[in-house]
Amino acid sequence: MDVVEFRPQRDQYAWTFGGVEPVRRIAPGTALRLWTEDAFGGRLQSPSDRPSECLDMTEVNPQTGPFHVEGAEPGDTLALHFAELEPARDWAASATIPFFGGLTGTDRTALLHEPLPELTWIYQLDREREVVVFEALRGQLRLDLPLEPMLGTVGVAPAGREVRTSLVPDKFGGNMDTPEMRAGATCYLGVNVEGALFSVGDGHYRQGEGEACGTAVEGAMNVTLIVELIKGHAPVWPRIEQDGHYVVVGSSRPLEDAWRASQVGMIDWLHELYGLDRLDAYQLLTQIGQAPLANVVDANYSAVTKIPKNLLPAADAYQGMHRYLRERAASL
Amino acid sequence: MDVVEFRPQRDQYAWTFGGVEPVRRIAPGTALRLWTEDAFGGRLQSPSDRPSECLDMTEVNPQTGPFHVEGAEPGDTLALHFAELEPARDWAASATIPFFGGLTGTDRTALLHEPLPELTWIYQLDREREVVVFEALRGQLRLDLPLEPMLGTVGVAPAGREVRTSLVPDKFGGNMDTPEMRAGATCYLGVNVEGALFSVGDGHYRQGEGEACGTAVEGAMNVTLIVELIKGHAPVWPRIEQDGHYVVVGSSRPLEDAWRASQVGMIDWLHELYGLDRLDAYQLLTQIGQAPLANVVDANYSAVTKIPKNLLPAADAYQGMHRYLRERAASL
Amino acid sequence: MDVVEFRPQRDQYAWTFGGVEPVRRIAPGTALRLWTEDAFGGRLQSPSDRPSECLDMTEVNPQTGPFHVEGAEPGDTLALHFAELEPARDWAASATIPFFGGLTGTDRTALLHEPLPELTWIYQLDREREVVVFEALRGQLRLDLPLEPMLGTVGVAPAGREVRTSLVPDKFGGNMDTPEMRAGATCYLGVNVEGALFSVGDGHYRQGEGEACGTAVEGAMNVTLIVELIKGHAPVWPRIEQDGHYVVVGSSRPLEDAWRASQVGMIDWLHELYGLDRLDAYQLLTQIGQAPLANVVDANYSAVTKIPKNLLPAADAYQGMHRYLRERAASL
Amino acid sequence: MDVVEFRPQRDQYAWTFGGVEPVRRIAPGTALRLWTEDAFGGRLQSPSDRPSECLDMTEVNPQTGPFHVEGAEPGDTLALHFAELEPARDWAASATIPFFGGLTGTDRTALLHEPLPELTWIYQLDREREVVVFEALRGQLRLDLPLEPMLGTVGVAPAGREVRTSLVPDKFGGNMDTPEMRAGATCYLGVNVEGALFSVGDGHYRQGEGEACGTAVEGAMNVTLIVELIKGHAPVWPRIEQDGHYVVVGSSRPLEDAWRASQVGMIDWLHELYGLDRLDAYQLLTQIGQAPLANVVDANYSAVTKIPKNLLPAADAYQGMHRYLRERAASL
Repeated sequence: MDVVEFRPQRDQYAWTFGGVEPVRRIAPGTALRLWTEDAFGGRLQSPSDRPSECLDMTEVNPQTGPFHVEGAEPGDTLALHFAELEPARDWAASATIPFFGGLTGTDRTALLHEPLPELTWIYQLDREREVVVFEALRGQLRLDLPLEPMLGTVGVAPAGREVRTSLVPDKFGGNMDTPEMRAGATCYLGVNVEGALFSVGDGHYRQGEGEACGTAVEGAMNVTLIVELIKGHAPVWPRIEQDGHYVVVGSSRPLEDAWRASQVGMIDWLHELYGLDRLDAYQLLTQIGQAPLANVVDANYSAVTKIPKNLLPAADAYQGMHRYLRERAASL
Repeated sequence: MDVVEFRPQRDQYAWTFGGVEPVRRIAPGTALRLWTEDAFGGRLQSPSDRPSECLDMTEVNPQTGPFHVEGAEPGDTLALHFAELEPARDWAASATIPFFGGLTGTDRTALLHEPLPELTWIYQLDREREVVVFEALRGQLRLDLPLEPMLGTVGVAPAGREVRTSLVPDKFGGNMDTPEMRAGATCYLGVNVEGALFSVGDGHYRQGEGEACGTAVEGAMNVTLIVELIKGHAPVWPRIEQDGHYVVVGSSRPLEDAWRASQVGMIDWLHELYGLDRLDAYQLLTQIGQAPLANVVDANYSAVTKIPKNLLPAADAYQGMHRYLRERAASL
Repeated sequence: MDVVEFRPQRDQYAWTFGGVEPVRRIAPGTALRLWTEDAFGGRLQSPSDRPSECLDMTEVNPQTGPFHVEGAEPGDTLALHFAELEPARDWAASATIPFFGGLTGTDRTALLHEPLPELTWIYQLDREREVVVFEALRGQLRLDLPLEPMLGTVGVAPAGREVRTSLVPDKFGGNMDTPEMRAGATCYLGVNVEGALFSVGDGHYRQGEGEACGTAVEGAMNVTLIVELIKGHAPVWPRIEQDGHYVVVGSSRPLEDAWRASQVGMIDWLHELYGLDRLDAYQLLTQIGQAPLANVVDANYSAVTKIPKNLLPAADAYQGMHRYLRERAASL
Repeated sequence: MDVVEFRPQRDQYAWTFGGVEPVRRIAPGTALRLWTEDAFGGRLQSPSDRPSECLDMTEVNPQTGPFHVEGAEPGDTLALHFAELEPARDWAASATIPFFGGLTGTDRTALLHEPLPELTWIYQLDREREVVVFEALRGQLRLDLPLEPMLGTVGVAPAGREVRTSLVPDKFGGNMDTPEMRAGATCYLGVNVEGALFSVGDGHYRQGEGEACGTAVEGAMNVTLIVELIKGHAPVWPRIEQDGHYVVVGSSRPLEDAWRASQVGMIDWLHELYGLDRLDAYQLLTQIGQAPLANVVDANYSAVTKIPKNLLPAADAYQGMHRYLRERAASL
C-alpha cells in the first residue's frame, strides 16, 4: 500500500474548504500519515495566553490538505478511514473566546452583554495512563479525563462554487466537531468538485457532546487515514460508519433543523441498506435512534443520528467498504 | 415502609399538570405501586386503527395522579425514585399522527403540505426474551428490540398558577420523553405549589433519543416508586440521578434553547456539588458532557445534559438521597 | 346599547387566561368601558424603582376580566371591537428586567452572563400634543414620541383545560404585544370554553415592533370595546381586522414558526374570503404580505402577517362584522 | 460625473460573492448603468415552465459584477446609492420550487413530505398604470399590484476568504431580499477585500415582506447607481439609509438571531449618530423601531430593523453621504 507522509509548513495550511490548490494528488487506495496543527495554530500555550491577543479568528482551524483524489467527480462518494489518531504533543489547550461558544452571546445571537471572561486551560497529556488532566483555574479541582482522540474537522470542497471557512460545518462536512470521528471510523462524504479536495484538522484529545464553550481539548494530531473512492452514491449529509454504529451528521440552524437533516439522512440510509419504506424507517428510527449532539457553537450547529448495528440485520454499506478499510488499516 | 397501591379508573385520569384535585395524600417516604395507561388511552390496538379516528388529541397522555405530598411547599425539592417499571400489557403501540412529530409540518411548523400517511404499528412483547418486536408495515422486516421501559411523563403542578397539558414538558417536568427516566433513576423536581401534586404516565417499552415520529413504543406500565421530600433546594430544571450519571433536562424551543437550559442547569449542579466556579464548570462540561436528545416533537423540545459520575470525584447530591432511595427500593 | 362599566379592585385582577371565575356575564352586543392597570401593577413610578425589588414576576400583566359571554361555545368566534383606548394616567413606565427581553440571556436562552443593568424609564404624557416623552437616563437626549395607544394582551381561556399566565401569547391570543391591537381594530378569537372568558390588559401608550427590551411604554388604560359573537368559524390563530388591513398573529418559537403560523393563517383567511386556492394564496401573499414583528421577548414570540385591503377585491369578512362594529362604536 | 454602462453577456454573470474576477475597475464617485438578469436567468417564461426542468439551482440569482472599487480596503465602507430601478422587461415570473420556500419542507427543515406542486406565475407589467398583474392559476382572480421595484441581491466579497452563493445573505449583504432596497436608498456595506468587489442582481418588480414562497415578482432590471467609498467605519451588518428611515439588515438562523443582529446593529448606529448609551438606545428602539421581515426562505433569514428619521433629532450619517448622493442622483 502507498503510504504518503505529509506535514504542512506553517504557510501551507488551508483555512477554507474549497478555494485552495491541492497540496498533493493521490490515487484512491492511498494511505496518508498526516500531521495536523491544533485549532489555535499552537498559539495558546499557557493559562496567561489570552485568545483575543493570541488568535486571529480568520486563521483558526488550520487544515492539512487539501488532497486531490484522482478520478473523484461530483456525485461520487469519498471514503476516509481513520486508522489512527495519535496526539502529536504532550499538552493541549482550551479557552473561552469573547462572543464565541454555546452559553454566551455571539455575533449572531447578538445581545447587549459584556463578553464572558477570557480564560485558557492547558491540559497535560499522560500517555501512559492515557489521560489528559483538567485543572480548575479558579479552584483546586484536578481531574484525569480519558484520552479519546477525535478530529473536529473533516471535509471536501463545497458545491455551488462556494468556499467556506474551516470553522463551519455543512453538507461538505467541515467543522462538525463530533466525537464520532475517531480512530476506527470511516467517513463518507459526497464529492462536489473534481478531485474532491478533502482536508482534515482540528484534533481534539477529547470533547464532550455539544462542545459547550466552543473549544475542545485542542491538540496537534498525527493522523493516519486511508482514502477510497466509491463511484456515485454521494450522500446528501456526511455519514460515518464504525464497527458498531451507523452515523449521520446534519449541520444547520436552528438545532432542530440540524437534527431533522441527520434524521432524514438516516432514514435514507436505512432505505438504501434494507429497502425499508421511509415511513417504516421513520418508525424504526424513533425507537432505536441515538441522538448525541456534536456542536452547538459553530456558525452551523451539528446534530448526530446514530444507530447500533446490533439492532439491525447484517448489511454491507457501500459493499462492505468499512470492513475492507478496517482490514487494510490493520495491516498498516 | 408504607406501600400505597393505586390504579385509576378511566374517569380518574388527569390530563394536565396542575388544576386537578389530588387522588391521594401521601407522606414523604411512601412507596407507590401505580398502574399507568398508555399515551393513547389504550385505543390503538391494531394496525388498522387510525389515530385521527381513535384519538381525541386533548385526551392523550393520561396521568396517574396527582398525588399530594404532605409538607411539600414551593421551593422544596421532590425526589421520585423509580424502583421498578414493568410493562402491564403484552403489546404496545406507536403511530404517525397527522401534523404531529419531528419530521412533518405541525400546527406550529405550519406548512402547506398534506399530512403524512397515518399508520399504526403494534409491538408484541416477549417477556422471556425481553424484547418488543418491530414489524414493518410496508415490507417484511421484523426485528427484536430490547425491552427498555421508561416513563415519558413525570411532573408536578407548574408555577405561576398555570395548568399545562400532559403533552408539554417544561420546568415542572412533564412530557420530557427521555429514556433516562428508567428504573433505578431518581428524579428531582422543584415544588411550585403546596403538596407538589405530582403525577406520572406515558410509559414507553422503549424509545430512541429524539422520539422522531412523536410516539414511542407506548404501553401501559406498572410503576413502583418511592417519594421523598427535600426541604428547599428546588432546581430550576428537572434533574435525574442514576447510579452512574447526573442528568439535567431542559425543555424549550428552539432546540438550542432547550440544550442551553440543560447545560446551565448542569453547571449549576456542578457548582453545588463541588463548589466549582461557573466558568471552570463550563470548561469541564465542554469536555465530559453527554448530550443525548430526549424529544424534538412536543410543544417544547427536551434536551438532556448528562455526566458520567466516574469522571468526577465522589459526591453526595442532596446528601446521598439517591443511594438512600436505591437501598430502600432494594428492600421493597 | 348596553354599556357595562368595570374597574377591577386590586384583588380582582386575573393573572392567567383560564382558571379564573368571570367577573361579569355579558350578552353579545354589549359595550364595555374598562379600566386596565399597567403591566407592572403600577409599581414602577420613578427611575429609582428597580424592577427586581418592585415586581413579583408571577404578578405582572394584570388582566381586567375575564368576562363570560353568554351563548359562546367552543368552536365559535369572539369578536372584540376596540372603540377607544385612552391613557388613564399622565405617565407610563418601561424597564429592563434581569434576564427578560430580546437582547439579553433569559431563563430559556440560558447563558452565563451577568444580567444587564436594571433601569427604569418614566415617560410623561402630554395629552395636548399627543406625545409621550422619552428621556435618556445616561445622557441628555429627550424626544417626543407620538401617543399610539394599544393593548398588549387580549385573550380567551385556552383549549385543552390549560391555564396560561398572562405573559404568554398563543392560539388563545394573550400577550401578543402587537401595535395592530389599537382603537378601531376588531379582534377575532376562537372560543375554547363555554362563555369564552376573555380578558384584556397590558396597555401600551406606544410600542415599537418586536418590543425589544420586553416592556413597552406601559400605562394604565381606559378601554371601550364592543363584544360580539359569531357562531362557529373559529380561526386557528387570532385575527385582527382594521379599516385598511387584514391581520393574523402567530405565536411560537423559534420566530420562524410564529411567522409560519401567521402566514398559513392568512392563506386560510384568503381562501375563506375569496375561494382562492391555497397555492395561489401562497403566491399572492408572497407579493403583497406585510410582516411587522410583534414581540420577540415573551415565552412565545409573536409574528404578524398583514395585508392591505386596497390591494384586494372588496370582501365582507364574517359578513361585515368589522364595519358593523365600527358603526356601532361611532354611536357610543 | 463618470457614467459607466455595463450589460453582462450570459457568460459574464457571477454566481457568487467573492471568488470572481471583477468585470470593471471603477473609481469612487462613478455612476453605473447596469442591466441585471432575473433570478431565474430568464428561463421561466410561461405557466407551463416547470422550475425543476428549467432551472439549475446552482445557477440562479445571476449577478452583474463584481466591480472593483479603487482604493477600497478592508474596514472601509462602500456606499451604493440606487438612483433608479427600472424594469427591463414587460413581464416577470414567480414560482414554487420543490423544497424551497418558507411554507414547505426544505433541505434543512428536512421532513418526509412530498414536495408541494411546482407552479409558475407570469406577471404582465403595465407601465402606464404602474402595476404588475397577478393571475390566479387555479381560479379567476386577477389583481393589479403596484409596481415597486427593488433589488433582492446587493453584496460585496465576504470576509475570511469565503466565497458564497448569490442565494445567501449574510454580513456581506447578498440575497437579503428586502423591499427596503429600492430607488432612493443608499446601502452601506463593510469592505472585506481590496476593491470591495460588489455586485447586484435579483430584481423584483415587487415583493411582500418575508417573500413567503421564496420567489418574488422576478424580473430583469435596469439599475442606475452611484458608488462612493468611505474610509473606515465598516458596519458589522448592512445598513440602508432612505430619505425617511434608517435601516439595518441582519441575516442568520433562527429568525430571532437575524432579528437580534439587526437590532444590535441599530443600537450601534444610534450610538454612533447620537452618542446614545447602548441601554438608552435599547429602550428607545423598543418604542420606535419597526421590524418588517425581509425573507424567511433563504439559507439565512433576513430581518430588518427600521427607524423613522422624523422621530429622531436631525443627524448626518456618514457625514451626510445619503443626502449628497441623493443630490448627485438628481443630476444624472
